[in-house]
Amino acid sequence: MKIAICGAGTVGRGVTEILKGNQALIAARTGGSIEIVVVASRSAPKDEVFEGLAYTADILSVCARKEIDVVVELMGGTTDAKTLIETALGAGKSVVTANKALIAEYGDALFALAAEHNVQLLYEAAVAGSIPIIKVIKESLAGNRISWLAGIINGTANFILTEMASTGPTRTFDAVLQEAQALGYAEADPTFDIEGIDAAHKLTILSALAFDQPLRLDQVQVEGISSLDPADFKFARELGYKIKHLGVARCQDGHLEMAVHPCFVPKSAILSQIDGVKNAVVVCGDAAGEILCAGAGAGAGPTGSAVVSDLIDLARGSAVASRSKARDGVMASLPVRPAAEVASGYYLRIKVEDQPGVMSAITSILARRTISLDKILQEDIAPNRSFIALVTDPIQHGVIMDAITELQSMASVIAPVQSIRVFR
Amino acid sequence: MKIAICGAGTVGRGVTEILKGNQALIAARTGGSIEIVVVASRSAPKDEVFEGLAYTADILSVCARKEIDVVVELMGGTTDAKTLIETALGAGKSVVTANKALIAEYGDALFALAAEHNVQLLYEAAVAGSIPIIKVIKESLAGNRISWLAGIINGTANFILTEMASTGPTRTFDAVLQEAQALGYAEADPTFDIEGIDAAHKLTILSALAFDQPLRLDQVQVEGISSLDPADFKFARELGYKIKHLGVARCQDGHLEMAVHPCFVPKSAILSQIDGVKNAVVVCGDAAGEILCAGAGAGAGPTGSAVVSDLIDLARGSAVASRSKARDGVMASLPVRPAAEVASGYYLRIKVEDQPGVMSAITSILARRTISLDKILQEDIAPNRSFIALVTDPIQHGVIMDAITELQSMASVIAPVQSIRVFR
Repeated sequence: MKIAICGAGTVGRGVTEILKGNQALIAARTGGSIEIVVVASRSAPKDEVFEGLAYTADILSVCARKEIDVVVELMGGTTDAKTLIETALGAGKSVVTANKALIAEYGDALFALAAEHNVQLLYEAAVAGSIPIIKVIKESLAGNRISWLAGIINGTANFILTEMASTGPTRTFDAVLQEAQALGYAEADPTFDIEGIDAAHKLTILSALAFDQPLRLDQVQVEGISSLDPADFKFARELGYKIKHLGVARCQDGHLEMAVHPCFVPKSAILSQIDGVKNAVVVCGDAAGEILCAGAGAGAGPTGSAVVSDLIDLARGSAVASRSKARDGVMASLPVRPAAEVASGYYLRIKVEDQPGVMSAITSILARRTISLDKILQEDIAPNRSFIALVTDPIQHGVIMDAITELQSMASVIAPVQSIRVFR
Repeated sequence: MKIAICGAGTVGRGVTEILKGNQALIAARTGGSIEIVVVASRSAPKDEVFEGLAYTADILSVCARKEIDVVVELMGGTTDAKTLIETALGAGKSVVTANKALIAEYGDALFALAAEHNVQLLYEAAVAGSIPIIKVIKESLAGNRISWLAGIINGTANFILTEMASTGPTRTFDAVLQEAQALGYAEADPTFDIEGIDAAHKLTILSALAFDQPLRLDQVQVEGISSLDPADFKFARELGYKIKHLGVARCQDGHLEMAVHPCFVPKSAILSQIDGVKNAVVVCGDAAGEILCAGAGAGAGPTGSAVVSDLIDLARGSAVASRSKARDGVMASLPVRPAAEVASGYYLRIKVEDQPGVMSAITSILARRTISLDKILQEDIAPNRSFIALVTDPIQHGVIMDAITELQSMASVIAPVQSIRVFR
């Protein structure tokens, strides 16, 4: 099988290293070689792994070359990469990509184009790096009706949350973000990672696949992690939780829910143990139960390994189409549950002036809305100042927001009320 | 695709439930139906899920029926099941099985027979129930050179260890085993599970696949969990470990290592968090790094889900052969490292009579063999009686055994020395 590698950045280097370094092994396991015919990128690649390989700056030209079977798109972005993929599929070449933004935004049209030309568009590397979660959902759980999935799918955010949760001197979000940037775990402009946009791309892809739905990026509720305070991590620890930035998708009573947000995860749940830049996804099927996959969510080797697994599927002729006519015909597009009606437990942190009756006033505001409490604790933070931290049983988002508005209007509540969802 | 289900026990019921209950979903995802033509078992199945399906007591007869494409072997055992699989493959039918003992003992000959007849023999359900570890190794990590894998691959043993580790009143191994039997988590004759034989079958299968080796069940070092004492769990906790029964396989310096044994697993390692009847496997690839998969290791639904995933691969035409000519030609059969030369850290628990110089005598016995200590603690257990618990740095098995023999010969060592390996 002959391939073109388009994009010579981190992932392009990783893929090339694997295909060169493990060439004999891959040929033996696959029953045929995977040959890099050309590396295409805007500027000539400098890394020595590319030495000895043909190079072109004319990226689109690879689509016109008859001998190339597969185009590997590792450029990123949603403009040139989209043109490349469309041109390659149109020319009857299968495509392997690691581009989550492109798949989340334009995947459905691209899958249809691939089906039309009887070729494949594969994207294992687009979600959670080394973790084979696309294959697990598409193939291993294909006999299951999936009810929900949840994942830590952004390593930068998880690194920051892990650092903020570590005991020792208290550090603010901004301080830890700067550290992450210094270590190369966060970009100079970290918005995509810390505001949940990158995670929303990945969640969109996972839920479309798990629930046989069209990709609906604009229907994902997104909250980032920049509003988290060291006090929240302290209370999480005391209440038996860790704070994780989760992508959560659910299919219940014929409605879809898709959200990315910080979450209190019980310490007994394995997701709470996934620390640092690691990623993990749990998928719950009606027959299999909960399956967890965890591993490195990014990097040349891990993401490269996922790209190579797609290439090997193509070389073996064992790739499963990303979209099939039969599926299109049977699966109805489900309504998305309005955000206000999505139920969850909530942690609230309320800064109050200590006065007789404060606790009673707060609990009665919650009780009037039939919000029941699972845990509550009060801690003095200064003379005449306390935090009240509480965890509720599951309640609709609209109801808790309404309660927060009333709490906020109390004279003795002297700072914005913090609210964080609780995982299951 | 038309199939025969042979064996109407727990897994047969699970598979039938999934294929019936999720029929439309599977057809839509697969692009074609999977039809149960006949259920074959020695006695007529009583569960209502089998109602409406044709039944035969003549199990081998399914191999002679032209319309049947796939035979699903869920009878267990290595005699009748072997005959059935050989006959089915010989008749040009693909086979899906959940039979770990059969694959571990006779898999290589059966894979060759399948290849000869140009059909498939698939066995995802043979290892770790719902966890798609066969597919992950065979497909997702196919571009990786795998250096090691480790797993909790017997739910019964893990349940017993989890119970013994739980705080509260101390319970002996025998007491917890009886509980597990009462709850249905352990068989009346629990030997296969608690002595590591079942885990050895699974480890054999995983390591053959991961390292492209023949199946070599007789080369697995096996130790069960029945010699573990409540004191070991107490010391594990105090030293920062949990005790897990692990299958571990390694490929290093051209040598294979395969072992099943109890292990001190650091609390920081995710494997230590896998509790109860859950299973989990970590595989380390040179590109992907460490990938963990966890889930239910047994049961009608989870094991049934794995069987159905193999059936869907066959229906889609995307199944990857369990053995390929190309692989046979390139992969050399590696020597197995002699047990005495396998290195590991060790926990030792030594019961001593308190006398001046005991600690010095013990540490000098270790020092003479250049066994260095990572942790040590001493605890009084009765007047003039102590446990000395210590953890060594990695050392060859033969060396530590030799040291234990000398320790055992000391007059002040008044009980057999307990030794348990440390994970990494």
